[in-house]
Amino acid sequence: MPNIKIKRERVKFASDNVTGACPEVLEAILKANDGDSTPYGNDQISTDLQNKLSEIFEKEVIVFPIASGTAANALALATMTPSFGNVYCHRLSHINNDECGAPEFYTGGAKLVNLQGINGKITAEELNESISGKGIVHHTQPSSVSITQVCETGEVYQLDEIKKISEVAHKHNLNMHMDGARFANALVSLNTTPAEMTWKSGIDVLSFGATKNGCLAAEAIIFFKKELVGNLGFLMKRAGHLLSKMRFVSAQLDAYLENDVWLKNAKHANKIGKMLSDGLAAHQEIEITYPTEANEVFAKFPRNMIEYLNAEGYKMNEDELDGKAVRLVAAWNTKEEDVNHLLKTIENKN
Amino acid sequence: MPNIKIKRERVKFASDNVTGACPEVLEAILKANDGDSTPYGNDQISTDLQNKLSEIFEKEVIVFPIASGTAANALALATMTPSFGNVYCHRLSHINNDECGAPEFYTGGAKLVNLQGINGKITAEELNESISGKGIVHHTQPSSVSITQVCETGEVYQLDEIKKISEVAHKHNLNMHMDGARFANALVSLNTTPAEMTWKSGIDVLSFGATKNGCLAAEAIIFFKKELVGNLGFLMKRAGHLLSKMRFVSAQLDAYLENDVWLKNAKHANKIGKMLSDGLAAHQEIEITYPTEANEVFAKFPRNMIEYLNAEGYKMNEDELDGKAVRLVAAWNTKEEDVNHLLKTIENKN
Amino acid sequence: MPNIKIKRERVKFASDNVTGACPEVLEAILKANDGDSTPYGNDQISTDLQNKLSEIFEKEVIVFPIASGTAANALALATMTPSFGNVYCHRLSHINNDECGAPEFYTGGAKLVNLQGINGKITAEELNESISGKGIVHHTQPSSVSITQVCETGEVYQLDEIKKISEVAHKHNLNMHMDGARFANALVSLNTTPAEMTWKSGIDVLSFGATKNGCLAAEAIIFFKKELVGNLGFLMKRAGHLLSKMRFVSAQLDAYLENDVWLKNAKHANKIGKMLSDGLAAHQEIEITYPTEANEVFAKFPRNMIEYLNAEGYKMNEDELDGKAVRLVAAWNTKEEDVNHLLKTIENKN
Amino acid sequence: MPNIKIKRERVKFASDNVTGACPEVLEAILKANDGDSTPYGNDQISTDLQNKLSEIFEKEVIVFPIASGTAANALALATMTPSFGNVYCHRLSHINNDECGAPEFYTGGAKLVNLQGINGKITAEELNESISGKGIVHHTQPSSVSITQVCETGEVYQLDEIKKISEVAHKHNLNMHMDGARFANALVSLNTTPAEMTWKSGIDVLSFGATKNGCLAAEAIIFFKKELVGNLGFLMKRAGHLLSKMRFVSAQLDAYLENDVWLKNAKHANKIGKMLSDGLAAHQEIEITYPTEANEVFAKFPRNMIEYLNAEGYKMNEDELDGKAVRLVAAWNTKEEDVNHLLKTIENKN
Repeated sequence: MPNIKIKRERVKFASDNVTGACPEVLEAILKANDGDSTPYGNDQISTDLQNKLSEIFEKEVIVFPIASGTAANALALATMTPSFGNVYCHRLSHINNDECGAPEFYTGGAKLVNLQGINGKITAEELNESISGKGIVHHTQPSSVSITQVCETGEVYQLDEIKKISEVAHKHNLNMHMDGARFANALVSLNTTPAEMTWKSGIDVLSFGATKNGCLAAEAIIFFKKELVGNLGFLMKRAGHLLSKMRFVSAQLDAYLENDVWLKNAKHANKIGKMLSDGLAAHQEIEITYPTEANEVFAKFPRNMIEYLNAEGYKMNEDELDGKAVRLVAAWNTKEEDVNHLLKTIENKN
Repeated sequence: MPNIKIKRERVKFASDNVTGACPEVLEAILKANDGDSTPYGNDQISTDLQNKLSEIFEKEVIVFPIASGTAANALALATMTPSFGNVYCHRLSHINNDECGAPEFYTGGAKLVNLQGINGKITAEELNESISGKGIVHHTQPSSVSITQVCETGEVYQLDEIKKISEVAHKHNLNMHMDGARFANALVSLNTTPAEMTWKSGIDVLSFGATKNGCLAAEAIIFFKKELVGNLGFLMKRAGHLLSKMRFVSAQLDAYLENDVWLKNAKHANKIGKMLSDGLAAHQEIEITYPTEANEVFAKFPRNMIEYLNAEGYKMNEDELDGKAVRLVAAWNTKEEDVNHLLKTIENKN
Repeated sequence: MPNIKIKRERVKFASDNVTGACPEVLEAILKANDGDSTPYGNDQISTDLQNKLSEIFEKEVIVFPIASGTAANALALATMTPSFGNVYCHRLSHINNDECGAPEFYTGGAKLVNLQGINGKITAEELNESISGKGIVHHTQPSSVSITQVCETGEVYQLDEIKKISEVAHKHNLNMHMDGARFANALVSLNTTPAEMTWKSGIDVLSFGATKNGCLAAEAIIFFKKELVGNLGFLMKRAGHLLSKMRFVSAQLDAYLENDVWLKNAKHANKIGKMLSDGLAAHQEIEITYPTEANEVFAKFPRNMIEYLNAEGYKMNEDELDGKAVRLVAAWNTKEEDVNHLLKTIENKN
Repeated sequence: MPNIKIKRERVKFASDNVTGACPEVLEAILKANDGDSTPYGNDQISTDLQNKLSEIFEKEVIVFPIASGTAANALALATMTPSFGNVYCHRLSHINNDECGAPEFYTGGAKLVNLQGINGKITAEELNESISGKGIVHHTQPSSVSITQVCETGEVYQLDEIKKISEVAHKHNLNMHMDGARFANALVSLNTTPAEMTWKSGIDVLSFGATKNGCLAAEAIIFFKKELVGNLGFLMKRAGHLLSKMRFVSAQLDAYLENDVWLKNAKHANKIGKMLSDGLAAHQEIEITYPTEANEVFAKFPRNMIEYLNAEGYKMNEDELDGKAVRLVAAWNTKEEDVNHLLKTIENKN
C-alpha cells in the first residue's frame, strides 16, 4: 500500500484488537475444520448459532455472522436508512470517524447527523431537537439512530439512557441501532442481561462484536425487529461479506458464547481497565478524562511523560479523540503485570 | 435469513469450498496467535507476505490480503473501472453471474459487457469487435477486461490466448484483470510460472485465490501495475474489508505459499479431477461437456441417473452453467476412494 | 468540454431533437411567465397537468414532469429495480447504449440484462427464458422489464406484443416500464388510445416523451401503478431534477397535449418518414433495413453515396445501430421539400 | 406525488424563484427556436457562451450549462471529492440542508463536514482546525471546501474572507467551490469584478446561478482550474443533465449576460431588499437578525404579527434557518409598491 499512510498504533494497550484469539475460539476453529460442509452459512454450526443467540437474547433473533465490525455496522444501517436518509449519531462515533465512510457507502449516500452529546454519549433531548424535515422533499429524511456501547469515551450507556433515546427514536418512526463492538464489556459493566441492554431497551438491530474480546474475525448482525432484515442477504453477498467458508466465523461465535467465555473475557478486561485507571489516577500529573466504565482508559499525560513513554516503547498517541486524551485499552489477555510494568515505568521517570 | 432462499449445494463434489483448511494453514493460524501485533495489516507477517509474493511473481508486486474472493474481484475492478465504465467479460463469468452485482456495487455502477466466447473463454477477436464508443459522452466507456483462470467451464486459458486478449485490451488502453479463484489449479495445469501466467502475458491486476485450495478465508489482490493501486486502501476500509486482525489472513497465505503447499494441493485436486473425468467418460450414458483441464468436471447425465444419485445422497444440480451440465469439483483433500465410491454408485445403478 | 469527444450528429434528418419547439408550446411558456408562482411543481399548471393526463389515459395517474428523457427513464427504473436487480431490455435499447449508464447510476448499480430480440423488439419467449435466479442470494434479482416505443430500429410494438411481454413480466412479479421517447409517433402509427398502448397492455410506468415531438425540454414519468411511486420525490430532488421553476416544464406539456397538438405533430412526422422511406426504397442502390413504422428510417447506402451526401452537407453516419444502417429521422417540422431535396440530391449523383 | 409532503412556500417575498424570466431571456428563447441545431450542447450558442464567460471572468474558463442549481453544485463537488472524501461547508449551507443529499448522491457517498461559522459564513480559522486525518485509511479524506455567495443568512463573503478560506483550503491541497446561486447579487453588493470574487480570490469551480435572477432554468458550472473538469461530461450525461436541446439553456445565459442584464436585475433586487430591510427595521417590534447585504432579509416578527400577515395572505414561515427568523427575498421584478404594500399592511395592524 504505497501511497497510503496507515495509522501506526502502539501495540501494548493500544487497542484490544492487537490480541489473538482465546483458546476456546481457536479450538473451535480446529474442530470445525473436520469434514466437509455446505458453504455460505448453510451449515449446521451457523444454524445452531441462530438458536443459541435466540436463547441468550430471550427472543427469536435473526443472525448474520460476518467477519468485520465495520461491515456489520454499515450493513445494519443500510437496512434502516435509505440513500436519502439521516443517521443520528455522536460526533465522535466510530461510524462517523473511523470507518472511512462505510455507512455512506453501504446506504448509498446517507447523511450522518452529528450530535454533540455529553462526553461520548448522545442524549434523548438533543436527539429530539435534531430530528426535523420529515416528509419535506428538500431535506434528507430522519431514518435511524446509532449508539455505541461501550461508547467512544469508554463510558457505558445506562439502561434508562438507552430507553429514553429509543423512545424518542421510535416516536419519530426511526429505528435504533447499537454498535456493540465492545458489547460484552458493557454488559458486564452494567451487570445486566443481553435482552435488557438491547430490545427490552428499544434496540432494533445490534452489531454484536466479538473480535476484540477473544475472536479472530467474528461479529454478528442481530435483528430483534425481523421486518428490518429486508434484502440484507443480497446486500451482504454483493459486498463480498458472505464468506464461502462462513462456518468458521460461526464456529468462533459459538465457542465465544459457550460456557460464558465472552463474559469471562470481558470481566477480565474490565478489571484490568479499572486497575490501570486507578493506578494512573493515583499519579499527580495524570488526569483521567472520562470515567472508566469498561476496559478503556482515557488520560491526559504531561508532554514530557508521553515522550518518555514513547522512548520506552509505549508510543502513546495523543491525537486521538478530539485531542483530549490518550486512550489505553485492556484486552481479554492483558495481564496485571502489564499494568504494573506501565505504572512502574511511569514511576521510574522521576 | 428468513426471506431469502439460499442455493443449497451438494456437499460431495459440490465445490472445492466445502472443504476446510489444509494442515499447514491451520498451523500457521495457531502460530500467528502468539503475542500481540499491530492491527490492520501493519504487522510483520503481512509485510513479509508482500516480499514472498514479489519473489514468487519475479516482480515487485503490491499485495492486499483479503478474506473474500468476491470482494477481491470487485475491488480490483474498481481500481480500473470508473462508474461509467465497461468491464468486458464472459457471459458465464463469476463476476457477471455469481456475485450478486458486486462489481457494479464497488465501481458505483459500471456495466459488465457480456461476451459469448467459445465455451467458457473469451477470444481476442470478439473482444476487439466489442470495444466501441470511446470518448463519446453518450456511451459507457471501455475500461477493463476480466478473464477467469480456471474459467467457468473448467477450461484453462493458454498463455498465448491470454497474451492476445491482453494485447487487444492494452491497444485500446484498457486494463487486464484475472479472476484467479483457482489460480493454482490453472498454474499446475499449464505447468508454467506465476509470472508467465500473469504480467508476462499482460495481466495488470490479479485476484489471487487461496480459500478453495486449502485456506479458510484468504485471498489477495495483487498489482503488477502499481499505478493502478490508486485509492484501494480507502475503498477497502470503506467496504469493511480491512480486517483489524488482518495478520491471520496473511498468515494463511504465507503458509499456503511456503514449501509449495499451494502447488501440491492443486496438483492433487487436478489429478483427482482427471480421474473423475476419465471414470465418468467411460460410462456410455454420461457425456463430458467441456474438456477437463483442471479440477472441475462438467458432465451430462441421463435424467434418471441424476435422480438415482440424488437418492443416494449426491444431490446433483443440473441447472448450473446454462443448463448444460452438472459440475463436479475435486478439492485439495478429495480422496481417490471418493471418486471410486461415486463411480461404483453409478455402476450399481443398473 | 475539452477532453471529451462529443458525437457530432448531422443536422438535417439527423434526429428529431435538432428541432425547436412548436408554436403552441412556445406560446404556453410566454403565458406561464406572467406573474409569480409557487416553485418546485406546487403550482396550478402542474396540478392541472396531473388531471389532464389522467383524462387522456382514462385512469388516475401520478405524473412527475421532468426536463430530461434520460433522467425520466433512469428514475422510473429506480422505482422498480433495487441495486441488486436485473432490468431486462433489448441490447440495442437507449437505456443500454445511449445514456452513459444512467439506469445503473440511479438504481445504485442494477444490471441491464441484454436480450437479442427480433430486429429492435424483445419477445415474450426470450424474456421468459432469460428470467432466472429469483431468490438465490448469489444472483442479481429479476426486477423489471423495459421496452422502447417506438423501438430503436424504428419499429412499433403491436398491442398484442406488449401484452404478451407484460404477461411474462407480471407472471414473474417484475414491473413493466415503457420508454416512450417517441410515444406519440407510436400511438398514431398504431391508431390506438394512450390507455390501450400502456396500462391496458400491462405497462406500469411510462417515460412520456415530448421534447422530440415539439417541446423544448419536457417529459413526464407517469405511474399507472401508484404503489410504485415510492420515494421518487426524494430521488428526483436528490438528483437535481426537481426544478424550482417547474411550472415551465408543466406548461410545455399542457400545451403539447391541448387540442391534440402532440398527435398532429406526430402524424406529420410519421407521414414525412413514410415519404422519405418510400422515396429511398425506390432507389436501386438503397436498402431499407427495418420496416418504417413511425418517423425513423433506417437504410443502407453504398459507400460512395454516403461520401457524396456528406460532401453535400448531409453527413450521414453509418456507424449507428450495430453498423447496419444510417438512421434518418423526420420531425414535427420537417417539410416535404426537405425530403424532396434529399431525394433529388441522391438522384443528381449519377 | 401522493405520499410526499412538499414544503409550500409563500409566493410574495417567499423566494426569488417564484418569478418568471425577464424579457431579454424570454426573447432569446424565441430567437433560439428558429431553425435546427446540433443537440447536446454542440451548437453555436453554447460555443459562444464559453467565450463570453471567458471574457467576463478575464480567464479562459470551461463552462457546462445546466438547468438545475442543485445538480450544478453536486456535479461540481463530484469533480473534486472522491466517494471517501470530506466536503467542508457551513452547517446551514444549501448543499447540506436543502438538496436532499444531492452532493452525497453525486460523489458516491462523500461526507459533508459541518462548520459552525459566524452567522452564515465559515471562517478560515475553524476550517483550518477541522481538517485532519489526511492519508489515514480509517478516516474520510479532506477533499474540498464549499462556500455560498450570497450565503444562507443573506450575508456576503468579503474578498479577504474568501481569500483566507481559499488559502487554508489550498494549503491542505483541497479544492474550493463556490455555490453562486445568487452570484450576481453578491457581485453588485461587493461592487467588484467576477474575476476578483472568484479565481483571483482562490475559487476553483463555481456554480453560476441565473435562474433566480431572471432565467427560467439556467445555471452553469464554471471551471477556473481546468484539470478539475475530469470526467464531468460523462457524469452529467449519466445523470440526465445533458439536455438534448441544450442550446435553450445556453441561450438564456447568453441573454442574461448580454448588456449587463444580470447586473441590472441584481442591482434592482438588492435595492428592493435594502428598502424592505430598512422599512422593517423601522418597526419597533421587528428585529432584523442578520445584516441585509444583498436581496435577502431575515427578520424576527412577533407571533401575532406573523399570524396577522398570514391572514392577509403573506404566509410567513418562521421555521426557516434554525428557527431564528423569517426570510423575505426581493427578486429582479419585485416592485417598490410590493414593499410598500407589505409595510402598510404591517402598519395597519395596530
